[in-house]
Amino acid sequence: MKKLGSVIEAQQFDKETLEKIFSTANQMEKSPPSGLLKGKIMTSLFYEPSTRTRLSFESAMQRLGGEVIGTENAREFSSKAKGESLEDSIRVVSSYCDIIVLRYYKEGGAERAKKFSSVPIINAGDGIGQHPTQALLDLYTIKKCFSRIKKLKIALIGDLMNGRTVRSLCYFLAKHYPDNHIYFISPEQTRMKDDIKSYLDKHNLKWEERKNFNSIISDIDIFYQTRVQKERFEGNIEVYKEIMKSSEGIYITRDTLKKMKSKACILHPLPRVSEIKYDVDGDKRAKYFDQAKNGVYVRMALLKMILAGY
Amino acid sequence: MKKLGSVIEAQQFDKETLEKIFSTANQMEKSPPSGLLKGKIMTSLFYEPSTRTRLSFESAMQRLGGEVIGTENAREFSSKAKGESLEDSIRVVSSYCDIIVLRYYKEGGAERAKKFSSVPIINAGDGIGQHPTQALLDLYTIKKCFSRIKKLKIALIGDLMNGRTVRSLCYFLAKHYPDNHIYFISPEQTRMKDDIKSYLDKHNLKWEERKNFNSIISDIDIFYQTRVQKERFEGNIEVYKEIMKSSEGIYITRDTLKKMKSKACILHPLPRVSEIKYDVDGDKRAKYFDQAKNGVYVRMALLKMILAGY
Amino acid sequence: MKKLGSVIEAQQFDKETLEKIFSTANQMEKSPPSGLLKGKIMTSLFYEPSTRTRLSFESAMQRLGGEVIGTENAREFSSKAKGESLEDSIRVVSSYCDIIVLRYYKEGGAERAKKFSSVPIINAGDGIGQHPTQALLDLYTIKKCFSRIKKLKIALIGDLMNGRTVRSLCYFLAKHYPDNHIYFISPEQTRMKDDIKSYLDKHNLKWEERKNFNSIISDIDIFYQTRVQKERFEGNIEVYKEIMKSSEGIYITRDTLKKMKSKACILHPLPRVSEIKYDVDGDKRAKYFDQAKNGVYVRMALLKMILAGY
Repeated sequence: MKKLGSVIEAQQFDKETLEKIFSTANQMEKSPPSGLLKGKIMTSLFYEPSTRTRLSFESAMQRLGGEVIGTENAREFSSKAKGESLEDSIRVVSSYCDIIVLRYYKEGGAERAKKFSSVPIINAGDGIGQHPTQALLDLYTIKKCFSRIKKLKIALIGDLMNGRTVRSLCYFLAKHYPDNHIYFISPEQTRMKDDIKSYLDKHNLKWEERKNFNSIISDIDIFYQTRVQKERFEGNIEVYKEIMKSSEGIYITRDTLKKMKSKACILHPLPRVSEIKYDVDGDKRAKYFDQAKNGVYVRMALLKMILAGY
Repeated sequence: MKKLGSVIEAQQFDKETLEKIFSTANQMEKSPPSGLLKGKIMTSLFYEPSTRTRLSFESAMQRLGGEVIGTENAREFSSKAKGESLEDSIRVVSSYCDIIVLRYYKEGGAERAKKFSSVPIINAGDGIGQHPTQALLDLYTIKKCFSRIKKLKIALIGDLMNGRTVRSLCYFLAKHYPDNHIYFISPEQTRMKDDIKSYLDKHNLKWEERKNFNSIISDIDIFYQTRVQKERFEGNIEVYKEIMKSSEGIYITRDTLKKMKSKACILHPLPRVSEIKYDVDGDKRAKYFDQAKNGVYVRMALLKMILAGY
Repeated sequence: MKKLGSVIEAQQFDKETLEKIFSTANQMEKSPPSGLLKGKIMTSLFYEPSTRTRLSFESAMQRLGGEVIGTENAREFSSKAKGESLEDSIRVVSSYCDIIVLRYYKEGGAERAKKFSSVPIINAGDGIGQHPTQALLDLYTIKKCFSRIKKLKIALIGDLMNGRTVRSLCYFLAKHYPDNHIYFISPEQTRMKDDIKSYLDKHNLKWEERKNFNSIISDIDIFYQTRVQKERFEGNIEVYKEIMKSSEGIYITRDTLKKMKSKACILHPLPRVSEIKYDVDGDKRAKYFDQAKNGVYVRMALLKMILAGY
């Protein structure tokens, strides 16, 4: 019987563990073991609100019979008046519970927390850093859709420069599933950065870059759409507007659907703004709400593997 | 075995269901079935804080052995930066749980939510719209006090123009319990609106309108007092002050108590400001805190009837 | 079988009850009785955020199998618009649960709440008033460190004028454990107030006052360090800076450790800012994180003794 430790970044898993997480998530989906984590307490320690992620983790914990305490207001710990360090807060909070799900506002928060915690940490996003459970649920969803993660043509679409999820997905694919083909499809201003491209090259994952998906629609298996992250353009609203304008050509619409493969699959980490039109939702290839639901199963799997073992 | 679906508005229930809710609430009060909703998860999805209502629902769910996740900060979903629609948020959140208790800031929110949710919705107030569980607990309290909802003289007192609860109560009484008599007692500026009066007329529920209850105190069975909703008069503080001044004559005081029937009953949806004096609280006819407690039983009844059936 | 009632202030306990609380806390630490409070509901009713205290109580309740509802936003009840009194809020909330843990922003809140609550109240801090569970966990920690609370030389260090915890500790020691010796060690501007000194004199607890602990380091058993409460000096930042400057001489550093007894023990109510250096944390005499953990056991003990009896 092994136990998973803290989950800090996407890259930490070897392929075997990854596959174990997916098979466990599948088991959670098919027949959740009720009461498995009875008596265990999870703290949701959120230094900034992220209601969707928090509720998903809390649902996962409760479906396994565990208990939840938490706050979305953890910055109070480190308020100007009280001035406590993250490290001290973690030492205290870890004495209250069996696992901490941490959302922090600065890169590296989860790694720092892990060093001082007496219980495992799951990184639920640290600034522009990692959000490994999102990457895991993306992969799990791909696997469910195609029963494989190879020989797929994957279009990553939208704000590829700032999008944390597409970057993580690239890392995972390069390292463990290089036998796929990636298309980066974005406006000029939000192209995927060079570090990722080099990483893909190093692992021999083939990629190309395009301004739109018009000529390749009927080849693509996965449309992974993302929103332009307005909050990254504060004080730069003109640039934001320009990008939004040039994004219109890569929106997914009823028209796109007509040209897609019948077995294609449309993903989105959500929230969605206008980059996938509402009238696409009813199509059976629209899998983004299933993807959100899969997040609960993947988190159940992690909680089980960390707290009860595998 | 039937199951109740979403609870969106007061008018949706037929009389038989209404009576079933009351008898179930009574059973919850007498002998709550512990552990009935074990393994079920309720989300409190509040787009504006309403701590009293939220805690009442959460207490109800936990008394039945269910689990609770939630937020009072759901507007974060639809924040300017993220811009998610209510419909998308509901689709995601409904994949985390078995029932959603929704508080929304605009009329019609619950109805919109219901269309996109994969689980039942209970409306916990949508702006100036409905708040059906409040109306149900008001009726349940009346029934407990008099063992009947007929041949009662019911004084609705205070801010009848803006008060959501008195409007809902009128709808219920007109539709299912017309054999009563309503007195509308309010300052000139906050009289009951004509739509309700027409509705009562249509259902032959007799009503009259008065500036105070002085000449009829000893006839009235139920004093349903309400507060002037200061928050509806923002930027209009002079009007508010004027109304407060003309309301003084319809406050319930020790003096009112002396002239009341010994079996009368004083209700209030709370919070109370000064319209019922504190020294009235000790009187056995003061039932407004019991009324709040009854809210838990009514909500337990609904949760049971929706999630476990009846 | 007795039951403890509300816990409002440190002074309410006789020595026998105090010792019973400590032995129960010890039992909670050694072999927690799982499921003891199944079906019981605790409300965390916080009129101001205090995440650490709230999570500690909620962890305690859940470790005993109980359920938790709550808010850190209870001021919404008494918001300008709604204007509800503490007393009314308490009457309502106490009808939802079996016990209320109350954090209030003004002295005397817990006492007022107790008068109107239908369930026991635990005071989790009321303004500059009491915070009795902190005092209890301090004493419990001392007892664990030395297996006794007598013949100890106790240095209370830092902002003794504003520190609530050191004041409470003095009361407890004077009343029940006078056979000890206290050193008040603080900058001139934050000396312990005369009321406490008189109280100690009355109970024959010996004390002396010093500007630093240099000449007595090797005699002291307990270093109870506290932070300068920046929030008490709002609009007076110059005074704060001056105090911080004169505090430097009483910080605990690696250097202090070298001169301490090998069995000494360093405590701190936390949060810590710079008054105990981070490189002290690894020393086995640094007990402040254990102290935080002991808070959970003491709170479990109180919840058990109130709700299940002893």
